Amino acid sequence: MINKLVENIKRTKAPIVVGLDPMLNYIPQHIQKKAFAEFGETLEGAGEAIWQFNKEIIDKTYDLIPAVKPQIAMYEQFGIPGLVAFKKTVDYCKEKGLVVIGDIKRGDIGSTSSAYAVGHLGRVQIGSKSYVPFDEDFATVNPYLGSDGINPFIDVCKEENKGLFILVKTSNPSSGEFQDRLVDGRPLYELVGEKVAQWGENHMGDEYSYIGAVVGATYPEMGKVLRKVMPKSYILVPGYGAQGGQGKDLVHFFNEDGLGAIVNSSRGIIAAYKQEAYAEFGEEHFADASRKAVETMIADINGALENR
Amino acid sequence: MINKLVENIKRTKAPIVVGLDPMLNYIPQHIQKKAFAEFGETLEGAGEAIWQFNKEIIDKTYDLIPAVKPQIAMYEQFGIPGLVAFKKTVDYCKEKGLVVIGDIKRGDIGSTSSAYAVGHLGRVQIGSKSYVPFDEDFATVNPYLGSDGINPFIDVCKEENKGLFILVKTSNPSSGEFQDRLVDGRPLYELVGEKVAQWGENHMGDEYSYIGAVVGATYPEMGKVLRKVMPKSYILVPGYGAQGGQGKDLVHFFNEDGLGAIVNSSRGIIAAYKQEAYAEFGEEHFADASRKAVETMIADINGALENR
Repeated sequence: MINKLVENIKRTKAPIVVGLDPMLNYIPQHIQKKAFAEFGETLEGAGEAIWQFNKEIIDKTYDLIPAVKPQIAMYEQFGIPGLVAFKKTVDYCKEKGLVVIGDIKRGDIGSTSSAYAVGHLGRVQIGSKSYVPFDEDFATVNPYLGSDGINPFIDVCKEENKGLFILVKTSNPSSGEFQDRLVDGRPLYELVGEKVAQWGENHMGDEYSYIGAVVGATYPEMGKVLRKVMPKSYILVPGYGAQGGQGKDLVHFFNEDGLGAIVNSSRGIIAAYKQEAYAEFGEEHFADASRKAVETMIADINGALENR
Repeated sequence: MINKLVENIKRTKAPIVVGLDPMLNYIPQHIQKKAFAEFGETLEGAGEAIWQFNKEIIDKTYDLIPAVKPQIAMYEQFGIPGLVAFKKTVDYCKEKGLVVIGDIKRGDIGSTSSAYAVGHLGRVQIGSKSYVPFDEDFATVNPYLGSDGINPFIDVCKEENKGLFILVKTSNPSSGEFQDRLVDGRPLYELVGEKVAQWGENHMGDEYSYIGAVVGATYPEMGKVLRKVMPKSYILVPGYGAQGGQGKDLVHFFNEDGLGAIVNSSRGIIAAYKQEAYAEFGEEHFADASRKAVETMIADINGALENR
């Protein structure tokens, strides 16, 4: 799946990922009204609104992008019907040839990590039959519990040719509270990065490892160091756009080959129509605004990479 | 909800929690057969088997115990139907007066943490209506992302009188890879414990804080230190029984008042019928074996507390 991600990135010339993190207040009124008319102001109604919103954005952007990253929390908050919308979104994106990174930030130990891995990346055995419950291509994983938490995920990834992005340095202001603390003179996130590189050696694709890392766009200097600590790991970079990161800040997340990083934007793309820059499209044509925002983001990042 | 947990513990004289972490191979054949006869060897069939298994264990143990801790990974691995079984289990346990600790180990930042908090502990607004999607009483949360990840959970907990158990020192062998690393001469888990104590000051119940911690039974010396670092935080202690912890190792997790800790056992209770010690019950009477295992565990821990 890392090979497919790299292929998709080369084909689209777009080292970006669209974060499908719908909030109800991002969803245009005409979509909400239609969904609520059919299902009422219920969890099912919310799930339907999210799904229709996602579908239109995917339809208008899939040819430009290599991958999407649905944030499961935004679906889980609507309970079972929200998770049904998550699953529909994953399936539809895969039909469209997109790589799906499930932003699930799970993490536990032993058989519990195995269960998460099976549920999201693998197949579960029930008697003589097996099923693929959520079937994302990659999942984000939290490393706080150490190798006992990560290895069960890697085992499933090896069986299924799937991959992980492990949280190393997150994009939020308080990420330093624990991640930046010095251990033997070096910040904790570097030690986590070293472990990611080690874990990644066990599950290599053609050019890059199936085991990648999450490093926030808001910390470009740390990205520069971590790029060298984990040369074969793809870096998933959240924090572009709405959180403050810009293309010029991101060049050091990439390797010399122009590969090795994939930059996420969520609100900046899916709620683009709410920004002044895209107001001309209007709420009705929100997905056209998203397409335009994707084009702008690709140009920003590729421009920065060409000028480095 | 921390007040209800303390009340339940005082009433039952049982500082324990039963981990409802069903694996298909724990579930007796007669339950599996019935579920598969009705729904086939499907995700729905697995969900039904889990639910019937849980229900019988709850019916046979609820009067002895203050709380349960369903591990959501074990349900999530069966996709949507598994999560339906999770929700049924949560609702049924609450009907029986049990405190429900959702072992979800979620953790993200900002609006994403809010979404998890709303989905599991709070209520979500849809137009003019609001819903309680999963409605656990407590949730376990991962601290790796810092205060930006925890505060949105605490905000929801304050509105709903709900609580958290934050991972501090986990029970697994490799938990030390990051958690034990020395920062200014002290292990990281102590710094996390200090933050738990600070976060907890913002949301106090009568005797204890709504914000507790997870500290593994397998590290009793660390439990002794952490007990003092977080005097007002309840400690949820996994790792008893199957993972190796015993009552005598656990006394230092408790305060002098005999409160302050709640010890989890999962496999040791729900799959007790598979152990030689409870073989007399037979597979058919698996839930009677669970009841006996609960009584034995309570006696072990209370005995250790009396003899300290």
